[in-house]
Amino acid sequence: MPNISQRACMMPSSPIRKLYPLAEAAEARGTKIYRLNIGQPDLPSPDEGLDAMRHIDRRVLEYSPSDGFRSLREKLTGYYDQYQIKVSADDIIITTGGSEAVLFAFMACLNPGDEIIVPEPAYANYMAFAISAGAVIRPITTSIDEGFALPSVDEFERLITPRTRGIMICNPNNPTGYLYTRKEMNRIRDLVAKYDLFLFSDEVYREFIYTGSPYISACHLEGIEQNVVLIDSVSKRYSECGIRIGALITKNRELRNAVMKFCQARLSPPLIGQIIAEASLDAPRSYSIHTYEEYIERRNCLIDGLNRIDGVYSPIPMGAFYTVARLPIDDSDRFCEWCLREFSYDGATIMMAPASGFYSDPDKGHDEVRISYTLKKEDLRHAIFLLGKALEAYPGNTMHKQRQ
Amino acid sequence: MPNISQRACMMPSSPIRKLYPLAEAAEARGTKIYRLNIGQPDLPSPDEGLDAMRHIDRRVLEYSPSDGFRSLREKLTGYYDQYQIKVSADDIIITTGGSEAVLFAFMACLNPGDEIIVPEPAYANYMAFAISAGAVIRPITTSIDEGFALPSVDEFERLITPRTRGIMICNPNNPTGYLYTRKEMNRIRDLVAKYDLFLFSDEVYREFIYTGSPYISACHLEGIEQNVVLIDSVSKRYSECGIRIGALITKNRELRNAVMKFCQARLSPPLIGQIIAEASLDAPRSYSIHTYEEYIERRNCLIDGLNRIDGVYSPIPMGAFYTVARLPIDDSDRFCEWCLREFSYDGATIMMAPASGFYSDPDKGHDEVRISYTLKKEDLRHAIFLLGKALEAYPGNTMHKQRQ
Repeated sequence: MPNISQRACMMPSSPIRKLYPLAEAAEARGTKIYRLNIGQPDLPSPDEGLDAMRHIDRRVLEYSPSDGFRSLREKLTGYYDQYQIKVSADDIIITTGGSEAVLFAFMACLNPGDEIIVPEPAYANYMAFAISAGAVIRPITTSIDEGFALPSVDEFERLITPRTRGIMICNPNNPTGYLYTRKEMNRIRDLVAKYDLFLFSDEVYREFIYTGSPYISACHLEGIEQNVVLIDSVSKRYSECGIRIGALITKNRELRNAVMKFCQARLSPPLIGQIIAEASLDAPRSYSIHTYEEYIERRNCLIDGLNRIDGVYSPIPMGAFYTVARLPIDDSDRFCEWCLREFSYDGATIMMAPASGFYSDPDKGHDEVRISYTLKKEDLRHAIFLLGKALEAYPGNTMHKQRQ
Repeated sequence: MPNISQRACMMPSSPIRKLYPLAEAAEARGTKIYRLNIGQPDLPSPDEGLDAMRHIDRRVLEYSPSDGFRSLREKLTGYYDQYQIKVSADDIIITTGGSEAVLFAFMACLNPGDEIIVPEPAYANYMAFAISAGAVIRPITTSIDEGFALPSVDEFERLITPRTRGIMICNPNNPTGYLYTRKEMNRIRDLVAKYDLFLFSDEVYREFIYTGSPYISACHLEGIEQNVVLIDSVSKRYSECGIRIGALITKNRELRNAVMKFCQARLSPPLIGQIIAEASLDAPRSYSIHTYEEYIERRNCLIDGLNRIDGVYSPIPMGAFYTVARLPIDDSDRFCEWCLREFSYDGATIMMAPASGFYSDPDKGHDEVRISYTLKKEDLRHAIFLLGKALEAYPGNTMHKQRQ
C-alpha cells in the first residue's frame, strides 16, 4: 500500500470537527447539545436568494465562467462601494467559498518554504491552506489580557526573514472578535510597504462590527494597492455558508492572471450559488439591520453571562460572532471532550471549540475556548448556565485545586 | 510589487479558454460560432434534479458535512452497484466537482518531485493539479495511428523511476474517446501491483460507451483495492457541470482520512448541488437511454463527416463525447485562432480545441484538434461543412503546399 504525502501528514485535523463523533454519541444517548462551536449562523438566508433559486428557469445546469458571472461581479462593486472599497468587476474573481480564495491566494503567491506572518489565535484553516502551498506560518501571538490587540511593530520585524512573503489577517477576527484599529492597520501597511509583502486580508465579517470604531479594510490602505489580496464570502453576511460563494479581490493584475490559471483548472465556481448570491445582494436594508441587532443582543447576553461565571473571563469582542474566553481549566481539549463525553445537566450539555486549535504553538490556548453566538438568546442563556454547571463539576477545574 | 509563485508561473493556461477573447470578438462582429471546443453537454438536466432544486424548503442554506451528505453517498452505492463497482457510503467522499477530487487525490498522495505516468493526449487540467501538488507528469504518448491504444508494458516500465508514485488514466478517455480493453486494464493492474503505485482513474464518462466492449473500471481490478482512487462527477452524466458535484472513492482508509483533512479545510461541498445530484439519481432509465442514443447518432454524424473531408482523419471514438482528429494543417493553435480571427463563411465559423494543449511534449499535437460532439446533429453537420470550407481557405493547409 503506497504511503500518503508528507503534506497530508502535516495537515491539521479540524479542531472542531474532531469532536463530532463525541457529539453524535452524546445525542445517541439522548443528550441535547447546545452548539457553541460553530460559525454557521442560524438566521434565515434572505428571501431574495431563496426565491431566485426556486425560480431558476434553466434547462441545463451548465458551467459558468471560471471567474464567475460578470453580472455578479458588477453588482458586487456596488456593494463594496458602500464600504468605500473602490474596485471594478475586473478586480473580482468569484471563488468556491472564501476557503478557495485563501487557497488560491497562497498557491499563486507562495513558494514552498516561504513564510507568512499570522496573528494568533487564528482561523485554523489558514494553516491547512499554507501547508497545501508548502508555506510556513510564523505566528505572532496576541493575548487575551490585551484584548487580542496587535503586538508592536518591533515584534513583527523580529519575525521577518528573507523568506517572509506576506501577512495574513482576519478583520474583524475569527476567533477573537477583535477589530483592528486605524493605527494598527497603518502599522501593517507600513510593514507591507517596507518589506514588499503580500497582505492577505480576510474580511468576511465586515457586517458584524459592534463598536463606533471605523472598519478599516486592507483596501483602504494607500500605497500598497498592488500588495493587497482581499478575501470575501457571502456565507456569513447572508447566512449562506452552504452555497460556497466567495471572492478573491486584488488590483494586482499579474496576480489575478496567476489566480485565474487555478480557477480555470477547476473550471467554474458553483452555478446555483452564484445566482443565489447575486439575488441576495437585493436583500433590503431591514435584513441586515435585523441580523445586526440580533447579534448585538446575543453578544451582550453571552459576554455578560460568561463574565459572571466564577473564574471565567471574556474580553468584549468588537466584531464577528465569536469570542475567545478564558476558563479555569487544566486543558481545553480535555474539557470540551469531557463536556460531550461525561457531562450533562437535565439531559443537556454544550459543545465548544478548544482554542488550542487556533494556535500553532502547542503550549497556547489550553485554558481558552472559542464560543460562537450563533444561537438564539434563550439558548445562549441556557448554554451559559450549563457551562457554569460543567465547570463546577469538571475534575480539572483549576479553582477547585486552589480551594483544596 | 511582490512576485507570484513559481508554481503559478508553471501552471498551464487552459488550452481552450485562451481562445475565448477571440470568440467574443468574432461574436461582436456578428459571426455565429459553432462550439466544437467544449465539454458542456447541451442536453437538459434531469427534471428530478431541477424539481428538487425548485422545491428546497430550507430557510438556512447551511454547511453540509465535509464528506457530503450521507444520504447522497448511500444512494450512490446503488448507482455504482449497477456497474459492479462494490463500494460502501464510507468509501465515498463528495467533492466540489471531479476537479477537486483530482486535486485532493494528488495533494494527499504526492510529494513535491514525485512522478505520475499519464497516457497522452490527456485532459489538460491533470497537469495543473499535478503542478499544484508539486508533482511531475511523465507522459506516455499514445498515437492517433494506433487509435490511441495503450503502449506496451515495456514502454511504461521505461518511465518508472524511484520517484514514480502513480498512474493516472481517464477511461473512457477525454480527449480521445478511447476505452481501455480488459487486457490493457490488466496490464495497468500488474504494473500498479508490481511497483506499489496509486492508480488514479477518472471515469466520469462511463455512461458514454458506444461499443460492445465491456467497461472495465479500476475498481474491478483485483488485488490493488488499496491502490485505486476513483474520480467521478455528475457533470457529464446528468448534464450538470455547473453544480460542481464530484466524488473521490477509495477503499484505502488511511488515504480517505488524509483526503478528509483537505475536505475539512474547505468546510463542505456545495449544498444545493448535492440536493440536485441526489434527486437526479432518480431520473428514469429513459433519460439515460435518450441521452445515450442521441450521442450515438452525433458520433456517427461527426466521425463520418470528418473522414469525408480531404486530408482529415479521425479514429472512431469508443466512448465519451470527443474525438481527436488529424487535420492537414501546419499548426493547430494557429488554425484554431485563424478560424475565429479571420475565417467565416456565410457569417459563421467554428471553435475547436488545439490538441497541443493535451500533450506535455511541445512537439506533439500540432496537426490535431479535439472536437466535441455536444451539439445537435444539424449544427454538427453544418460545423463539419464549415471545417471543410475553413481548411480550403486556410493558408497553412499542408495539402495546398503539396499541390503547388
